[in-house]
Amino acid sequence: MTAEELRRRLESFRRGELPAEDLVADIRAEPFEDLGFAKPDHARELRQGVAETVYGESKEPGEIAAIVERLRSRTGRPVIVTRVSREKAEALLSLVPGMRYDPASRLATAGERPEPDGAGTIVVATGGTSDAGVAEEAAQTAEMLGNRVVRVYDVGVAGLERLLSHVREFQSAAVVIAVAGMEGALATVIGGLVPCPVIAVPTSVGYGASFNGLAALLSMLNSCAGGVCAVNIDNGFGAAVAASRINHPEARR
Amino acid sequence: MTAEELRRRLESFRRGELPAEDLVADIRAEPFEDLGFAKPDHARELRQGVAETVYGESKEPGEIAAIVERLRSRTGRPVIVTRVSREKAEALLSLVPGMRYDPASRLATAGERPEPDGAGTIVVATGGTSDAGVAEEAAQTAEMLGNRVVRVYDVGVAGLERLLSHVREFQSAAVVIAVAGMEGALATVIGGLVPCPVIAVPTSVGYGASFNGLAALLSMLNSCAGGVCAVNIDNGFGAAVAASRINHPEARR
Amino acid sequence: MTAEELRRRLESFRRGELPAEDLVADIRAEPFEDLGFAKPDHARELRQGVAETVYGESKEPGEIAAIVERLRSRTGRPVIVTRVSREKAEALLSLVPGMRYDPASRLATAGERPEPDGAGTIVVATGGTSDAGVAEEAAQTAEMLGNRVVRVYDVGVAGLERLLSHVREFQSAAVVIAVAGMEGALATVIGGLVPCPVIAVPTSVGYGASFNGLAALLSMLNSCAGGVCAVNIDNGFGAAVAASRINHPEARR
Amino acid sequence: MTAEELRRRLESFRRGELPAEDLVADIRAEPFEDLGFAKPDHARELRQGVAETVYGESKEPGEIAAIVERLRSRTGRPVIVTRVSREKAEALLSLVPGMRYDPASRLATAGERPEPDGAGTIVVATGGTSDAGVAEEAAQTAEMLGNRVVRVYDVGVAGLERLLSHVREFQSAAVVIAVAGMEGALATVIGGLVPCPVIAVPTSVGYGASFNGLAALLSMLNSCAGGVCAVNIDNGFGAAVAASRINHPEARR
Amino acid sequence: MTAEELRRRLESFRRGELPAEDLVADIRAEPFEDLGFAKPDHARELRQGVAETVYGESKEPGEIAAIVERLRSRTGRPVIVTRVSREKAEALLSLVPGMRYDPASRLATAGERPEPDGAGTIVVATGGTSDAGVAEEAAQTAEMLGNRVVRVYDVGVAGLERLLSHVREFQSAAVVIAVAGMEGALATVIGGLVPCPVIAVPTSVGYGASFNGLAALLSMLNSCAGGVCAVNIDNGFGAAVAASRINHPEARR
Amino acid sequence: MTAEELRRRLESFRRGELPAEDLVADIRAEPFEDLGFAKPDHARELRQGVAETVYGESKEPGEIAAIVERLRSRTGRPVIVTRVSREKAEALLSLVPGMRYDPASRLATAGERPEPDGAGTIVVATGGTSDAGVAEEAAQTAEMLGNRVVRVYDVGVAGLERLLSHVREFQSAAVVIAVAGMEGALATVIGGLVPCPVIAVPTSVGYGASFNGLAALLSMLNSCAGGVCAVNIDNGFGAAVAASRINHPEARR
Amino acid sequence: MTAEELRRRLESFRRGELPAEDLVADIRAEPFEDLGFAKPDHARELRQGVAETVYGESKEPGEIAAIVERLRSRTGRPVIVTRVSREKAEALLSLVPGMRYDPASRLATAGERPEPDGAGTIVVATGGTSDAGVAEEAAQTAEMLGNRVVRVYDVGVAGLERLLSHVREFQSAAVVIAVAGMEGALATVIGGLVPCPVIAVPTSVGYGASFNGLAALLSMLNSCAGGVCAVNIDNGFGAAVAASRINHPEARR
Amino acid sequence: MTAEELRRRLESFRRGELPAEDLVADIRAEPFEDLGFAKPDHARELRQGVAETVYGESKEPGEIAAIVERLRSRTGRPVIVTRVSREKAEALLSLVPGMRYDPASRLATAGERPEPDGAGTIVVATGGTSDAGVAEEAAQTAEMLGNRVVRVYDVGVAGLERLLSHVREFQSAAVVIAVAGMEGALATVIGGLVPCPVIAVPTSVGYGASFNGLAALLSMLNSCAGGVCAVNIDNGFGAAVAASRINHPEARR
Repeated sequence: MTAEELRRRLESFRRGELPAEDLVADIRAEPFEDLGFAKPDHARELRQGVAETVYGESKEPGEIAAIVERLRSRTGRPVIVTRVSREKAEALLSLVPGMRYDPASRLATAGERPEPDGAGTIVVATGGTSDAGVAEEAAQTAEMLGNRVVRVYDVGVAGLERLLSHVREFQSAAVVIAVAGMEGALATVIGGLVPCPVIAVPTSVGYGASFNGLAALLSMLNSCAGGVCAVNIDNGFGAAVAASRINHPEARR
Repeated sequence: MTAEELRRRLESFRRGELPAEDLVADIRAEPFEDLGFAKPDHARELRQGVAETVYGESKEPGEIAAIVERLRSRTGRPVIVTRVSREKAEALLSLVPGMRYDPASRLATAGERPEPDGAGTIVVATGGTSDAGVAEEAAQTAEMLGNRVVRVYDVGVAGLERLLSHVREFQSAAVVIAVAGMEGALATVIGGLVPCPVIAVPTSVGYGASFNGLAALLSMLNSCAGGVCAVNIDNGFGAAVAASRINHPEARR
Repeated sequence: MTAEELRRRLESFRRGELPAEDLVADIRAEPFEDLGFAKPDHARELRQGVAETVYGESKEPGEIAAIVERLRSRTGRPVIVTRVSREKAEALLSLVPGMRYDPASRLATAGERPEPDGAGTIVVATGGTSDAGVAEEAAQTAEMLGNRVVRVYDVGVAGLERLLSHVREFQSAAVVIAVAGMEGALATVIGGLVPCPVIAVPTSVGYGASFNGLAALLSMLNSCAGGVCAVNIDNGFGAAVAASRINHPEARR
Repeated sequence: MTAEELRRRLESFRRGELPAEDLVADIRAEPFEDLGFAKPDHARELRQGVAETVYGESKEPGEIAAIVERLRSRTGRPVIVTRVSREKAEALLSLVPGMRYDPASRLATAGERPEPDGAGTIVVATGGTSDAGVAEEAAQTAEMLGNRVVRVYDVGVAGLERLLSHVREFQSAAVVIAVAGMEGALATVIGGLVPCPVIAVPTSVGYGASFNGLAALLSMLNSCAGGVCAVNIDNGFGAAVAASRINHPEARR
Repeated sequence: MTAEELRRRLESFRRGELPAEDLVADIRAEPFEDLGFAKPDHARELRQGVAETVYGESKEPGEIAAIVERLRSRTGRPVIVTRVSREKAEALLSLVPGMRYDPASRLATAGERPEPDGAGTIVVATGGTSDAGVAEEAAQTAEMLGNRVVRVYDVGVAGLERLLSHVREFQSAAVVIAVAGMEGALATVIGGLVPCPVIAVPTSVGYGASFNGLAALLSMLNSCAGGVCAVNIDNGFGAAVAASRINHPEARR
Repeated sequence: MTAEELRRRLESFRRGELPAEDLVADIRAEPFEDLGFAKPDHARELRQGVAETVYGESKEPGEIAAIVERLRSRTGRPVIVTRVSREKAEALLSLVPGMRYDPASRLATAGERPEPDGAGTIVVATGGTSDAGVAEEAAQTAEMLGNRVVRVYDVGVAGLERLLSHVREFQSAAVVIAVAGMEGALATVIGGLVPCPVIAVPTSVGYGASFNGLAALLSMLNSCAGGVCAVNIDNGFGAAVAASRINHPEARR
Repeated sequence: MTAEELRRRLESFRRGELPAEDLVADIRAEPFEDLGFAKPDHARELRQGVAETVYGESKEPGEIAAIVERLRSRTGRPVIVTRVSREKAEALLSLVPGMRYDPASRLATAGERPEPDGAGTIVVATGGTSDAGVAEEAAQTAEMLGNRVVRVYDVGVAGLERLLSHVREFQSAAVVIAVAGMEGALATVIGGLVPCPVIAVPTSVGYGASFNGLAALLSMLNSCAGGVCAVNIDNGFGAAVAASRINHPEARR
Repeated sequence: MTAEELRRRLESFRRGELPAEDLVADIRAEPFEDLGFAKPDHARELRQGVAETVYGESKEPGEIAAIVERLRSRTGRPVIVTRVSREKAEALLSLVPGMRYDPASRLATAGERPEPDGAGTIVVATGGTSDAGVAEEAAQTAEMLGNRVVRVYDVGVAGLERLLSHVREFQSAAVVIAVAGMEGALATVIGGLVPCPVIAVPTSVGYGASFNGLAALLSMLNSCAGGVCAVNIDNGFGAAVAASRINHPEARR
């Protein structure tokens, strides 16, 4: 059931054309089915876009494989599995023929990457080379959700000239995802340069008083630039989902 | 210099039609002028929308008045001053004729509220009545930045039926601003119900282990719903700026 | 000495029928005996129910085996050992014939699971599949303490429809144990749906600003729903003991 | 609509006797009505017991008065307002004739205290005289919710003989609420003495490394006694609601 | 005893020309004398420069006055008293004729400001107007310690063009003191632009997740620019002393 | 140079019988000699008792061996090396013939354990069996420093009867070292039972909200019992040194 | 009942001469009596020395007066009330004739200061003049508990020569109480200079990253000097009780 | 482009002799070139001194090798790679002939160590032998940047005589880098002894309440000695860069 379909049904219900029982039954029947250990959520597409997503961190390869295949067979959409270690990926790929794995982003995917259909471009920027893993999680997720992505990496604010040589890319973005560890100032500086929203992703890159990303997170939350908001430390995936929602405004009308 | 003008000049510069000196001179001449104690930033409009904004927390009424009048006389746009206490507001309104003050949101404004020109509607939701001050800061700022705003207050997740009776408003929003203190679960529940981005604003409402909003902030950052990102504790203003950027996609093409 | 016996002796002592020395001697003789490295506490049954429990985390297999056998031979009751790693379990099972081990819950048990004799049902709910280990520690402990348990897993609040399809189970529970990591909102939402007490168990599932369960813990402590109280992060065992005490009200009259 | 009534309707619905629309309509019509600034929640009774409760901390006297009167006129039940300062109470009592105020507990109440109808006794214990305010909030709330309460104050564990002289009261309780600041050890010691559940309430009493109750809270969460769970710092009210739910097991059958 | 004198005596001692007793006696006699409640430290000049300094926060006006007069009469040097509130200043100025007070920096001073004798210029920069108090404490202290100071205020990194229009001042500095609250990115950006050392001063300006300056402090400690080091939150005084030591290299040869 | 010798020399110096040079030379010659990588401190005996101590955590076996042998050959006293892992111990024992290693306490020692010469008995108590490692570090260090030690293990406050059956040992102690993790209440309860000082040692035993011993540490610092002071988490060694100083009052007259 | 009396009775009981009932009755009868709001604890003398103590922070003047008079009339001993504000002291002194108040230490006392009967001298040292309040709480409490006290104030380690000029006092102490805020290094430096135990008292003096004494507390807990243990921030009273117990070794034989 | 060259060009630009385009082009062309995964920054020399530096922590050996060779071939200067593990070093040295590796400091270097050309001497001091790794990172970096370095190790403040025997070295330094873990008091004590700036480096040496260096960091930030500033935990490299800038004042005129 697409968002459009749901909206139509709700409208029917409101006009009195669709009995409440039917509506409730439809919604209950639709969203998920029970695999015993997990409830893959088909209705989530309604909320997150063209691809299904599975959080892979604490699931066994067998569990992931079962969920992926059920989602594929039922919806036919591409599936993204996040936070898959190299070891887990090996097991997973042997279980699900046709899956692909990217060690930098730790994403495993099934199905084709869709054509971009977003309103504009998502720019993914990083402060340093060490932030590239999280940035790739964001960039590739955004691509799987139907967005055109431009990568601008290693432009930390301690060398302003690097950042400034990319002002054009930043200013033509629909959304910027700013990925940075250590002091996390990248988001604020970009926030001051662009008219679009900026999603800040703190990373756990750093040591000592970076406290595994806490310093970058606090820095980003305290940004004095307008239009900056933050997601969890190392959460490239979440930033991509939010950016994709911003970049698909027609999906919510 | 509007965003459009700047973009045109940068384009001329790139085609070699505008000498670098001229470009630099333009930019330097434009953005701000020195009042001694502060540099009001006319260029900021380029990045934040139709109104100028002043952070009022730690400025004296006289300083604020000077900045407001300079901004008004130079740009003619409305001006929003945030975090103005009741006492400061009295002094300020006596210095700047025509300013208005709203004690709930602690906003002082000069100039007319513009007609809404955003793509859709911004829904501002709160968990409890105590979150209303921060929510009003968000709602009124968003209105001053040219957005239509719908308020859905006091729909905390401990009484789900209240929240669910507003699903329609949530699902037709272009952006939702979810304002909540205590355990901050509102953002996650809404994030699971809507296809649009959700900006979560933790508030300092609560006591004990709320640690002045830290609990709500952490809760929101750990949201397992897609499309949720967060701003600083009690930062209704920042949420509104980000939401307005999302709601004005044409501004960045 | 059962709780009933103790109460009777205290009563005799109060009526002057039992000399103080005897009472003191009884209590001193009863509760524990010295194994050199640990004092297994037979009197604990009085306070925790029909099974003996041993905290296995930092004990050697040999130590655990000695304690288990002493408890078994003396009381005849079932014994639960918590937080037993897979490696430790192998050593332990070779030392104590007849013990069983469940890797999901990390519980090792000796003796038969008793027939449920509690007043009602304990519902154990989880937000995601990753919380299942802690939930099983709670569920199986509760079963060993004589409770009927219903499991409702993977019903996180980012997909409300899953949770709502189980409202019936929740509303007929004597106690709900709500197990969730990340933002921990599950406890609050359930707390608003049921008339019974809710014991919230934060888990260390998550990353970044979850701070190993701190975010979920704070969220649960700040719950704005009535009747919610919390135990330590990942403490499924403690939640089960509390729930079992609630579900055995006759034990304390 | 009482819990019993709701259960009956859900049963009718399940047997097909009650159309879904009617059920939904009933529930939606019931729970709350809009006062503009707040939605008093009549359905909450279903979940919290015989009295209505209002969180008074950040509400104006006029707001509280309006909510109280609406609740009273609609349900006829007693109303408890929590965290009312002395100043606010004066304004409130002048607005709502017949309200009473207790400065120790900071509770304002309207309506008669109901006859105790709980299964047993709730014992409220404190570590020191400074914890009495929080303890009274717990004790008086519990009484308003229909429980018999026994107070055992100033029995901190640094003077064990005081605590031990009350073992009898503790051991005959249905629930113990243990209120303590500073090192918070009271809950653990009581948890080891009784067969019933113990709800630990950390208080902000203390200074320095008590960090406004954090030390007591952590201590209570780490209790090595079984059956102990905790609520937020200074949350006597929440402890009472949980205790009352435990003490009214018939309410949930 | 100046640094030069002390060095000469230590040299004599090392050559065997000055008996150890004499050296010890000299040092012991020199440094301080007892006022009962405090030991003003005449030897500190040796380490901090041409002016004496008194930490005024927790001292009574009478105490401060006694210390100032003793220092003045004994050394003839100027005296700086830090963290003097407006109320305390009034009492102090009435006790010590000729003292001056600056409410912005909260510094009270006695004696003439010395001629600058440092090697170069100290630039004091701030991110916003709210940081001006701490910046003035730094700037005026540095001037009292014999340094030429250039102020570059309100050049936060959310508006890069302001900062960049001052590159020349920054690049010709001997030391930069970068004062900023909120996300504290100023120090990193300046650190990347200049060849001199940068002393970062986090300020408590901000709210919510700024945690009274903690966010800015962590940000500065994690700076990925070289040559940046930090002092305590709001410690403009300490930054000035360090900067002055850097700017007076001849003092330590 | 023993404490007694030093005292005598200082006295001579004060009477003018010993020239300052000689005194300074004596002290400088005495305390340490340079091994390149470390400066073993012979004078430390003066301050810590009859045995030398070496912190083994971050030193290589070769380094430790060199220090131990130098100390042995120079002072003839026993040597204690703390925090020696099992692997490091093997290497160390092969390098220094005659050393002994105890895996429970992670102490390696050289030389004979001295006869107890303290004023009374040091009681070392633990809350649980998991605290035994830290307790043994304390107990064995105390023995090496010349104290008679009584061990009372596994007497946590959740089972008061165990603790109370040892009241006699506690009340006859010269000092009690209370070792406990989790909620750390042991120190407070003992502090209320004894007239002697109590040194509290928090341990990192626990999980979740124990935060590696932080909960126990805070609990102990907030103890409402008199005479309780605390050392660092897991610092059994430091507790033993403090206890030994207390138990050797004649050493400081 | 003095400690000596209690010991004698316990001995009788052990020899079978005193029935258990009598012993229990004696102990129960002795220690406290109920004032309704508080249980003054006469038995505490047994554990804390010759004076009774009352924590005055959160008690009303009338409550304190009632407790003080009961203690005085029953035991005849001096009474110390801690943390009494100037306002509370005025009310208290008007209620209890003969009480004295010292604003520096915030102690109110009744009864004569006893003759010193401790084994040696307690030295109370402070890092700065701002620590004097906490130091006086420690010093005067120690004097009321029968100790001779030497004050060595304002000897912070940033000016080592001040500290070293008092080495003699330090080295002849039975215990040193080291009171310091900010970086709290005083305890470590003294700990390295003396053979006696050192009780470190962190104070909340400081600002910014002192976090109200946390920095000093952590510093003291991490002291690399032997024999140092710590009490809570600003807890001069607790340090004095511990020091007095150390200085009265005969009390525990 | 050296700093001198840049300064000359900026001067030409200011005199109108160099067109703005040329200047911008020069700067843009100069600073970095794109290797795909990283942008080695040739302009950084301008700001950090004679050697190039690469942060090695999260880079693969192949990446590091490519960056090192590009930097070497382009600038001819020495290159320092920081935080290289022993394993990574092996791979790296096989890829880049002529590199050297020092396991203590974890630095890999290419090119000759330059002759010292700083104004004075940098003294690197440590509190204990465990701090030597961080200290060597600082010392060797400083040497590679053209500074003369004196090492004074293992002079912790718990044994003041060791520290004092090096006063001469400290007092003749141009800068002191004070490296210490645990309580971190070294920086304050040295700060009180010298007239030059002190850069404090907290280390993660310690356990328990050292919280991986947090205690030392806070201690250093709260130093009551003038002229002390701090860098991140374990950041020997950053301290060396700052110290080298201080020691090369001519570089910035």
